[in-house]
Amino acid sequence: MQPQQQLAMEASINAIEWSGNALRLLDQRSLPDDVDYLECMDAAAIAGAIRGQAVRGNSLIGIAAAYGVVLAAKAIGTSDNWEAALADAFAMLEASMPEVMQPSWALRMMHERTRRLADHVDVPGELLSAAISIHHSDIEANLTMGKLGAQLIRKHQKGKQNLMTHGNAGALTAAGYGTALGVVRTAHAAGLVDAIYVNETRPGLEGARLTEWELAQLGIAARVGVDSAAGHLMKSVPMTWVVVGAERIAANGDVISTIGTYALAILAMHHGLRFMVVAPSSAIDMGLEIDDDVAPDEQPGNDERSKVSALSPGPLTFDVTPADLVDVIVTEKGLIERPDAARIADLMSHRRLH
Amino acid sequence: MQPQQQLAMEASINAIEWSGNALRLLDQRSLPDDVDYLECMDAAAIAGAIRGQAVRGNSLIGIAAAYGVVLAAKAIGTSDNWEAALADAFAMLEASMPEVMQPSWALRMMHERTRRLADHVDVPGELLSAAISIHHSDIEANLTMGKLGAQLIRKHQKGKQNLMTHGNAGALTAAGYGTALGVVRTAHAAGLVDAIYVNETRPGLEGARLTEWELAQLGIAARVGVDSAAGHLMKSVPMTWVVVGAERIAANGDVISTIGTYALAILAMHHGLRFMVVAPSSAIDMGLEIDDDVAPDEQPGNDERSKVSALSPGPLTFDVTPADLVDVIVTEKGLIERPDAARIADLMSHRRLH
Repeated sequence: MQPQQQLAMEASINAIEWSGNALRLLDQRSLPDDVDYLECMDAAAIAGAIRGQAVRGNSLIGIAAAYGVVLAAKAIGTSDNWEAALADAFAMLEASMPEVMQPSWALRMMHERTRRLADHVDVPGELLSAAISIHHSDIEANLTMGKLGAQLIRKHQKGKQNLMTHGNAGALTAAGYGTALGVVRTAHAAGLVDAIYVNETRPGLEGARLTEWELAQLGIAARVGVDSAAGHLMKSVPMTWVVVGAERIAANGDVISTIGTYALAILAMHHGLRFMVVAPSSAIDMGLEIDDDVAPDEQPGNDERSKVSALSPGPLTFDVTPADLVDVIVTEKGLIERPDAARIADLMSHRRLH
Repeated sequence: MQPQQQLAMEASINAIEWSGNALRLLDQRSLPDDVDYLECMDAAAIAGAIRGQAVRGNSLIGIAAAYGVVLAAKAIGTSDNWEAALADAFAMLEASMPEVMQPSWALRMMHERTRRLADHVDVPGELLSAAISIHHSDIEANLTMGKLGAQLIRKHQKGKQNLMTHGNAGALTAAGYGTALGVVRTAHAAGLVDAIYVNETRPGLEGARLTEWELAQLGIAARVGVDSAAGHLMKSVPMTWVVVGAERIAANGDVISTIGTYALAILAMHHGLRFMVVAPSSAIDMGLEIDDDVAPDEQPGNDERSKVSALSPGPLTFDVTPADLVDVIVTEKGLIERPDAARIADLMSHRRLH
């Protein structure tokens, strides 16, 4: 079996698919009631899908934006100055993203490729290979993180474990396998999971709407509870790990993730649970320093994200979990236990280990 | 001004009103959209209102049940054996309550009165005075707790404070003034409150539906946020107190309250906020000992309570906050600082101090 075929088989949920001349995106707004797809024929359609929160998550949004650059280049056809010709498309795609994801790791890679290929014969074709490479690297990174995270669980505990997750850090936010949920499904396949507790994750209800649906597609039953029951559950159920994703990780190891992750990390510490953050190295921003007193993001359009918007007045979408509440960050380059600036820098200076 | 008139004026939200031959209850299920009332003409109607969660809270449910006994006695008219004649009504009213409120403090008092008045000429009339006395004592207790709680805030901090509350422990769960919200409104009137942060309180959304509405009736603006933002808010906003109510308090000071209260107490400790529980001594059950490993209540009918029931799978309505996470319990008999079994027993052995 070719590696790509194998990847496709492992990725049973296709949130994103390149069809040759268009990008097909799973419209996450209608889940779990309907499984609808958006056919994006140009960069503007992809920017619209990102802005409208049809796609979510730093990885998936980055990959979609990379294909957006490809569609823009195809529309332009030929140019003497590709960097200038694509400037508007780059700007539009970047501006469509939640602030917390800017600057975009994927657009930065596409821009770098554009600069280097300025004189190439088939620039749209070359940009397509770049986008496909970003896409497949993300799936591979997810599979690697899944294995590393599951090994970590096995190393620390014997037998089946009860885990908790928050938000949706699954195939719906990555390119087909998932970060936190990638660890959960690898651990589940290895017989390491008893029950997976999922916080419903207000206001967007990503846990109740998306994570439960996604795990159900994989034949894994989730126990969904209200966010505020997490403390009570940790006290009354023998649980060992909280496993979450991240939108962005700062140079010092602070984690920007779905609102509620910070409170969950405090509750985990209080109850003696380990706290695992799973995110590809593309989420680590060595230029990002977090001012602890400032909200990381007051994302516009948050109200539309929620199905119960009338009762969802808070504009907060993300919070910051300080590195000292995190036991381990799992990346495709390896583990960062008790993360701090030095350990993050050390990992980021390595070539890929796996 | 007569004390009763004064009490009525202070109680600007009438969740419960005795009309002479019926009990009028504010139907909390339709709030904040509609302000509807239920006219209960007999004990069965009151039991139905309690079972259907039209009324909430240990105090208000107890008072409503006391009037239910009065309506049952009126329907019976005369009897040679009132205890036997009322047995079915007592049983029906008690069974209509959430398990965590059983045995009912108010029904216990009404039963005691029934036993002692067995040979009285006008038993229905005497039971009515007993119910009115229970009702007015609760309002008085609320006013006293409001003053004691506000004094405590003033004693510890100078200037206007940011407070946080959870659920609805206001006039909608007591007889017209409120416990936790009684402290908030007294403190607000005394110029001690800057902003009051209200957790929306899933799954019932008592914070978003009821507390925000109730505070708006009093001209107090609430800042409602999702439950999982509480940790982030405590980190980013200078806050000094969490003020909550309780359905029941055990002999050792453990507090049974709306789900999420336990997690909030841990977050308060982590961020150096004081944690105040406000509840009348009628909520303290000297016979109650809590097994820390058992959920306090998996209340049936919880799904109906929520406006977003399809996304509200958790049956949990209450949790237990261990006494060692509580800085102070405010009762109408006085304060219990750093509560434990000895201090609770000491307070409960006193006559009323205020």
